[in-house]
Amino acid sequence: MALVVIGGVAAGLSAAARARRVDPRLEIVVLEKGPVISYGACGLPYFVEGRIREASQLVVYTPEYFRKERNIDVRTGARVVAISHPRREVTLESGARVAYDRLVIATGARCDIAGIPGGTQPHVFALHTVDDAERMRAFLRERRPRHAVVVGGGYIGVEAADALRRNGVGVTLLERSRRLLLRDDDRFTAAVRKQLEKHGVEVRCEAAAQAIEAGQVGDVRCDMVVVSAGLHPNVELAAEAGVETGRSGAIHTDDRMETNLRGVYAAGDCAEVTHLVTGRPTYIPLGTTANKCGRVAGANAAGGRERFPGIVGTSIVGIFGMGFATTGLSVEQARAEGFSPVAARIEAYARPRYFQGSKTTVELVADRHSRRLLGGSVIGEEGAAGRINVIATALGSRMQVDEFEQLDLAYAPPFSTVWDPLLIAAQQLMKEM
Amino acid sequence: MALVVIGGVAAGLSAAARARRVDPRLEIVVLEKGPVISYGACGLPYFVEGRIREASQLVVYTPEYFRKERNIDVRTGARVVAISHPRREVTLESGARVAYDRLVIATGARCDIAGIPGGTQPHVFALHTVDDAERMRAFLRERRPRHAVVVGGGYIGVEAADALRRNGVGVTLLERSRRLLLRDDDRFTAAVRKQLEKHGVEVRCEAAAQAIEAGQVGDVRCDMVVVSAGLHPNVELAAEAGVETGRSGAIHTDDRMETNLRGVYAAGDCAEVTHLVTGRPTYIPLGTTANKCGRVAGANAAGGRERFPGIVGTSIVGIFGMGFATTGLSVEQARAEGFSPVAARIEAYARPRYFQGSKTTVELVADRHSRRLLGGSVIGEEGAAGRINVIATALGSRMQVDEFEQLDLAYAPPFSTVWDPLLIAAQQLMKEM
Repeated sequence: MALVVIGGVAAGLSAAARARRVDPRLEIVVLEKGPVISYGACGLPYFVEGRIREASQLVVYTPEYFRKERNIDVRTGARVVAISHPRREVTLESGARVAYDRLVIATGARCDIAGIPGGTQPHVFALHTVDDAERMRAFLRERRPRHAVVVGGGYIGVEAADALRRNGVGVTLLERSRRLLLRDDDRFTAAVRKQLEKHGVEVRCEAAAQAIEAGQVGDVRCDMVVVSAGLHPNVELAAEAGVETGRSGAIHTDDRMETNLRGVYAAGDCAEVTHLVTGRPTYIPLGTTANKCGRVAGANAAGGRERFPGIVGTSIVGIFGMGFATTGLSVEQARAEGFSPVAARIEAYARPRYFQGSKTTVELVADRHSRRLLGGSVIGEEGAAGRINVIATALGSRMQVDEFEQLDLAYAPPFSTVWDPLLIAAQQLMKEM
Repeated sequence: MALVVIGGVAAGLSAAARARRVDPRLEIVVLEKGPVISYGACGLPYFVEGRIREASQLVVYTPEYFRKERNIDVRTGARVVAISHPRREVTLESGARVAYDRLVIATGARCDIAGIPGGTQPHVFALHTVDDAERMRAFLRERRPRHAVVVGGGYIGVEAADALRRNGVGVTLLERSRRLLLRDDDRFTAAVRKQLEKHGVEVRCEAAAQAIEAGQVGDVRCDMVVVSAGLHPNVELAAEAGVETGRSGAIHTDDRMETNLRGVYAAGDCAEVTHLVTGRPTYIPLGTTANKCGRVAGANAAGGRERFPGIVGTSIVGIFGMGFATTGLSVEQARAEGFSPVAARIEAYARPRYFQGSKTTVELVADRHSRRLLGGSVIGEEGAAGRINVIATALGSRMQVDEFEQLDLAYAPPFSTVWDPLLIAAQQLMKEM
């Protein structure tokens, strides 16, 4: 039995490693088109910032490690150009063919930087691979740009803006839609905008970058451009082989991460997953989900029987020291999904003032009819991750606001207030129901 | 209609405030035996430490506030000495009588310091009231003790040890049982002991304080003693009036916080509550629970219909900058309750090393048969509260380890690792099941 995995970053390597645990005898080949594997893509902005000194710190495992310690054949610079499922083989750019019994597709996603006129100029960067980040870091050091335009107000765009400001570069952030951090939530977007502006980032929403010229984007003069907009799942290879994509445009799988082709699995930024709040497929590409889905795909490809129930869409991003976290649905998203959302938003101290506690903002959203929690957001300098994770856990178990209000959360003065901001928000929400 | 509340700290005032919201016309009287109300008892060790400068910072509300803003008659120095339920009245120490239609008993708990021979000497302190803390602070300032014995290794004892060490006082901690922080868990106790010892506290378990002499306790020479052992619920007043206590010795109520006497409610450190993991009544007196139960008691006493489902026993304590948090049952406790516990304990980075992340320890306990999570602990310098709260939320919804392993937790490098330590622990636990 041979397993071939296309892609050697988060989902692909999770799949390979897990398959090895399930079947110690399986032949496993990982084909990665790039020069390095197993890098922490989420760390790239911090390498640009300079907090991570060496690109090597971003790389968790080497092909040698996988070969020696896991008996997994990991090949870099191995771009797959075709999948022939009838023949159970993939073809590499070099013309070489690799046969498989089971296949895991973990081809990731891309920002289509070349799709923007002027996108191939040397002062234009994506921030997707270690190579991108190294080029950007070198550019910052050698060319000392004065002003950058960041195209895209998603996670990477905002993190890039933060990293550039910390390097003394002026930043204008352009976001095509009216929302930031992919959250259809006016108040959350306003808070993100406020934090960015407070630290000198000019934010323009509903502003698309039509073309990138030598010294400007639209009317913004700049000597550097970062493109992190328009993330697309890499599905072409799979689609040509007959793998079905879903409404989101990403590869559709069942809850075992198997595609419509028997023995072919997909995971990571190229695949959609079930949203546990809506029950419908969604495309929210994140490293956490890629790793979990990869594990399940790898286990099943090796003969296991595991399932991935889905996600609730939890994410967090740090912007100049403040955590902005969301999970589930915003009011606007909940309404669009056919719920009757009710929301409460409160501001409260995250810890007592005598412990230098700072204020945190919590919003909770519930459905008026079922009383089920649908989502929430947390903004704060401390405890934002822990608090959003509590909401995420409640969403994962379809908790009602009535139960949430009575959660037995930890309290001691160094850590929280006796009424945790989450519970204050729940009490407020109960009044609104 | 008149509501009388006995006790003006956490549970009592939560009850009174909530009753006022439910019924704006209710006559509400709060009778507090001490000189101040509404103080944050959990902040007392931090006042002793000196972090909180003024005792007034510990007091959240004054009687004047309640009178003016809430139309609640709060009387201090009003010790109730008898309850006559047939006559629906309470008798004060002064001989005055106060009639009630509904009664909330929130009489709290006490360390029976006078029960230890020598416990009434001026160098012996409890740490239960603002007055206790002020006396202790004055003693530290004026007498500059060199060595203290802390009797009791529960939360307050450990926090007192921390506060004293930070004031340059040598500390020996005596704990009657073999466990610290009330957790029947050898490894957790060992970790607490290690942290205390690392910061110069001598820890002796299975060491009872038989008597307190002028210059020593047992063979430990000392010039100061803090007694925080043997917490007892104040049930005598209620019991004499015919209120039933449970197996724990604290007042038993239904899930509306009503006692066996109709119209008489109890909440806070004098009452037991249901443990949601075991389904049985338990006595775990904490400020968080007191506030929640007080609210429910007050709402129902005012004619509302609310219920308090129970607790999962979540707590956290900071010891020299490290968080020690537990929830649900330890392996030992789970076995004693008739479960077949399986546990996994892991150590992992709470955040990436390039963000100066430190290591955190997570233990998860599940039942082998039902696969339900039963409890857990988290030890770490960062994120311990957030992580224990995730486990507590999972316990509150009777989550199985299989679901827990797939939780959609937030990740970004400033906040966590891509596999949160909670998920690593869950993966380990899945292997052990």
